[in-house]
Amino acid sequence: MTYCLGILLPSGLVMASDSRSNAGVDQIARVHKMALIEQPGSRVIAILSAGNLATTQSVVTRLKEATGSGDLTHDLYTARSMFEVADMVGNKLREVIAHDGGFVQPYGDPSASFLVGGQIFGEAPRLFEIYSAGNFVEASERSNFLQIGETKYGKPILDRALTAQTPLDDAAKLALLSFDATIRSNLSVGLPIDIFRYETNSFSTANFATLEDHNAYWRNLRQGYSEGLSALVAQLPAAPQVWEQPGA
Amino acid sequence: MTYCLGILLPSGLVMASDSRSNAGVDQIARVHKMALIEQPGSRVIAILSAGNLATTQSVVTRLKEATGSGDLTHDLYTARSMFEVADMVGNKLREVIAHDGGFVQPYGDPSASFLVGGQIFGEAPRLFEIYSAGNFVEASERSNFLQIGETKYGKPILDRALTAQTPLDDAAKLALLSFDATIRSNLSVGLPIDIFRYETNSFSTANFATLEDHNAYWRNLRQGYSEGLSALVAQLPAAPQVWEQPGA
Repeated sequence: MTYCLGILLPSGLVMASDSRSNAGVDQIARVHKMALIEQPGSRVIAILSAGNLATTQSVVTRLKEATGSGDLTHDLYTARSMFEVADMVGNKLREVIAHDGGFVQPYGDPSASFLVGGQIFGEAPRLFEIYSAGNFVEASERSNFLQIGETKYGKPILDRALTAQTPLDDAAKLALLSFDATIRSNLSVGLPIDIFRYETNSFSTANFATLEDHNAYWRNLRQGYSEGLSALVAQLPAAPQVWEQPGA
Repeated sequence: MTYCLGILLPSGLVMASDSRSNAGVDQIARVHKMALIEQPGSRVIAILSAGNLATTQSVVTRLKEATGSGDLTHDLYTARSMFEVADMVGNKLREVIAHDGGFVQPYGDPSASFLVGGQIFGEAPRLFEIYSAGNFVEASERSNFLQIGETKYGKPILDRALTAQTPLDDAAKLALLSFDATIRSNLSVGLPIDIFRYETNSFSTANFATLEDHNAYWRNLRQGYSEGLSALVAQLPAAPQVWEQPGA
């Protein structure tokens, strides 16, 4: 399983992915699920992957190899908008599935999905989710985070706390709390976490980090949250022995 | 969708279910998903249902009608243990599916699952989950809660806070917080919540309640939790602008 999260804010993007790949519990590996593609000063693109690892690696590798080729259908450097980037990712996914899907099917599910976030000079940062079918949806201020993979455990904290006004560094904190909830409840999502904070108009991939278990901020965050939550729950009153009567 | 939860503790059981039934978003109804079967002083059985409503109602109604019949394979009053009760529910489910499944299949999924909790004089309270296949698993002190339906949103709070030492009234509080998380994140799980607290050796169904939105405890609980959680998250430090270097 996988957990990838993208958050879109006026101040920028937070993109985060876990690193566990497994084909059954006895075959577990650490992989990269986030690819960054950059033209300093003009474009930054983050592609986060879930699903069949051979499929996602094939899509990302082929797209990376095509950068600078001038091929208007596959060269991410030629895309004039993040919408075109999302379209190229979806089309490449369809090509890979058309090429490999029939051979893979007898052994397992060849499908994959992606989060694609970034900024191209001339437009604001944008965030897309590319479905297994190759079509895609875009985040907006009304729906400002997208998730792929094991999405449910980490959703409540975002539903409660993330708003369009959340500062970028607080959004990064919420992203990590969302990963904490997921990692606690699903063994197949695992450290390290790759996290990329992109500040609007920075056109820089500098604020990327890989958080291992021993990272001090990560450890303090999850410990502080866990202790604070236990204290909060303990302090809320227990259920009454006698319930309020309906209509009372 | 549905959310049903059963918690097994030395001090008793907490069983809770939501009330929303839907066949598409334009056909929504309130239904009972918890049935209580009681022989004062000797047995208390709670059956919680998820899945196809016609299937679950057929299973529960037929089992209720068979009580007192003396039929050793279907009369819950004759079951000598909660294991036998779980077996009867699983067998009845297979009968109903054998009878109706083929007719229902062209229109939708006929399958169902159940939580069965209770106590029969002579043994401790027990809790089971009956799968769609009619087989079942039992909760224990190592795995002291079981869920059916929309299980994921409400699992993190239980993973974090529920222990074998949790008092029954605190377990009821945790159950309601688990429902709060689920209801916030999934529209197809809805109020009222039926909640039944069973105290070991009481052989009583007296502590059953239906919580509507205006129930004072429920309102205060979810408001207190929401405000406390917001304050906790706000008080945790934002992600650092510069990440700790690996190995530093």
